[in-house]
Amino acid sequence: MRLIAILTDFGLRDHYNGVMKGVIYSINPEAKVVDLVDDAPSFSVLDAAFMLWASYRYFPAETVFLVVVDPGVGTSRAAIAIKTKRYFFIGPDNGVLYPAASADGIEAVVRIKQGRFTLESRSGTFDGRDVFAPVAAWVSKGIAVEDLGDKAEGVVRLEFGSPEIGDGYVVARVIHVDKFGDVVTNVPISTLDSLGPLEINGKPLVVLNSFSECSGICGIKGSSGFLEIASNMANAAEALGLKTGDRLELRMARGKA
Amino acid sequence: MRLIAILTDFGLRDHYNGVMKGVIYSINPEAKVVDLVDDAPSFSVLDAAFMLWASYRYFPAETVFLVVVDPGVGTSRAAIAIKTKRYFFIGPDNGVLYPAASADGIEAVVRIKQGRFTLESRSGTFDGRDVFAPVAAWVSKGIAVEDLGDKAEGVVRLEFGSPEIGDGYVVARVIHVDKFGDVVTNVPISTLDSLGPLEINGKPLVVLNSFSECSGICGIKGSSGFLEIASNMANAAEALGLKTGDRLELRMARGKA
Amino acid sequence: MRLIAILTDFGLRDHYNGVMKGVIYSINPEAKVVDLVDDAPSFSVLDAAFMLWASYRYFPAETVFLVVVDPGVGTSRAAIAIKTKRYFFIGPDNGVLYPAASADGIEAVVRIKQGRFTLESRSGTFDGRDVFAPVAAWVSKGIAVEDLGDKAEGVVRLEFGSPEIGDGYVVARVIHVDKFGDVVTNVPISTLDSLGPLEINGKPLVVLNSFSECSGICGIKGSSGFLEIASNMANAAEALGLKTGDRLELRMARGKA
Repeated sequence: MRLIAILTDFGLRDHYNGVMKGVIYSINPEAKVVDLVDDAPSFSVLDAAFMLWASYRYFPAETVFLVVVDPGVGTSRAAIAIKTKRYFFIGPDNGVLYPAASADGIEAVVRIKQGRFTLESRSGTFDGRDVFAPVAAWVSKGIAVEDLGDKAEGVVRLEFGSPEIGDGYVVARVIHVDKFGDVVTNVPISTLDSLGPLEINGKPLVVLNSFSECSGICGIKGSSGFLEIASNMANAAEALGLKTGDRLELRMARGKA
Repeated sequence: MRLIAILTDFGLRDHYNGVMKGVIYSINPEAKVVDLVDDAPSFSVLDAAFMLWASYRYFPAETVFLVVVDPGVGTSRAAIAIKTKRYFFIGPDNGVLYPAASADGIEAVVRIKQGRFTLESRSGTFDGRDVFAPVAAWVSKGIAVEDLGDKAEGVVRLEFGSPEIGDGYVVARVIHVDKFGDVVTNVPISTLDSLGPLEINGKPLVVLNSFSECSGICGIKGSSGFLEIASNMANAAEALGLKTGDRLELRMARGKA
Repeated sequence: MRLIAILTDFGLRDHYNGVMKGVIYSINPEAKVVDLVDDAPSFSVLDAAFMLWASYRYFPAETVFLVVVDPGVGTSRAAIAIKTKRYFFIGPDNGVLYPAASADGIEAVVRIKQGRFTLESRSGTFDGRDVFAPVAAWVSKGIAVEDLGDKAEGVVRLEFGSPEIGDGYVVARVIHVDKFGDVVTNVPISTLDSLGPLEINGKPLVVLNSFSECSGICGIKGSSGFLEIASNMANAAEALGLKTGDRLELRMARGKA
């Protein structure tokens, strides 16, 4: 039995996540459904793409990831299903699936066709219920991705990007801000040594392994493998006015890289 | 095995939803529990009634809906169990169950009696734990609704109502506002043609199938079958100062209906 | 099969709770996982300790409680597993497990060793994923607590404490504030009779069984067995400026105890 892991921005004050589960259990009464993220930042494809990428490899092989962060619902953006080396990814073709799917190794991408594996009636605003949940349920029962529609010509690519290294500075990108105000950048921890000492807002950025030793604003070797900007039990994102998608300039204390 | 779907306003910063699940698994270790809504707007029977109604039909037959939005807990309001044509509904008799249960076809309503199917000790503030969760667990195991207590004489009716049509205007009612600020009205999409073009705050209300084509405030053919007032990636409820229960006047551009 | 009940302050806008479940299902595909609290107040060991204590006894015997409210992650604070008379508790040794575990009767405490039952790679900021979730999964499969590491010399004790009774007043402690603004104190309901009539901010504190009869600020016999300070459909904590950990002075109207 394939697990279904759900990642959406629907939140829990509404019935949207719940009704998707109703659809799943109606199609596959034996389904095993896991909430991966219930309340992702509204409309933020980047935050969701990061969280899916940071999570997928911890799930059992053949898990079906059902991802609905979908500001383009009702437009011509495709609904897609991706088979990768070890997993399945179902969601809108807006890039949200791309970092995780490509990291695992994409084997097939299909453009989902309205029909046997979707609900008959279809609202223009809730493909999570009408398209993605039923398709995920069928895939969890063993339906092949190839049977869901036609081979897609391509797929929207979303990349976290590499930090730009300039003359004495690094420009990072904020790819996620979490509940605690920790700011995830696209600077891989593995590159920190080559960058040397960094400064943020004119002050040295001490890079630590955990929050507790941090006073003020610090760099943290984040659990996803990226540098985070954080504080100890305080909200660094608010303190620095940073949000997902922002550029973040860090000076390299030793000058040019 | 009957699924148990939980809808409450308890939220997830507290243990209230979780402890209800503990009670359920203690009675029925094989239970399959689904979170339908964990964090409904506090005390709002109307929001919860709408969300239950918009969701129930997507669940497998015989699902037991366990609904605890219960501002009258500890008063003389009854605790009831309803058997409908295809489902079971457990909750307070404050109207929250009525739209869904009556839409499915009520076959029996029972006033739950303290006793064999409820917890022995009973707090005055947490019938979710002491009454509704244990009863739902027993019903999921096959106990008949009729065994839970005496036939109820009646049941509190809550209706979404029909929009009032006046001389050149429609007065709708807000029956739900969601996380995104989309405002669900009680105007059925199926009646929009007969109403003709509408205006909101002196401006034409363009009615669309999806959010992405909307600029400013629009009408949306909502996924529940009702007209919604919404914006594209912006909070229409805040922009218009609307909340659940409010009246909303829409002018009919062509004059009298 | 032992149930795993999760209590964290990770919230649902992030992937932290979800990825822990991925780890659990990777180790134990048959696991039954319950969300006890997903979004406890950030970093608040006291709130979490109260909620765990108020909940654990409603779960089936042998439930594994996986608790991650862990402001000291990455420090030398131990990761522990406790076997009690009826349950298992896994989490940081910061007191959060203590009230529940000691109430049930502690039989063994083990300091979790990095190794066979934890993930190989370990971040300094996410022991929930790398240590606690895998250990909980293994315990749910039947691994003995004793096999997880060495016997702990002791355990951090956290107590709700007894209200201080002075000359004509009681000083209570706020041990939790819930979503609705209800303020849980450490005054056992069973001691209310001996205290006699109480006053709060110079006004009589009427103690009721349920919210609905309350006008203004009232005492409520809370569902956990403690006196709560609450209002009817209004936020008493905000009205009184109270938060978890605060002292709360109540005058005894009849003078000395």
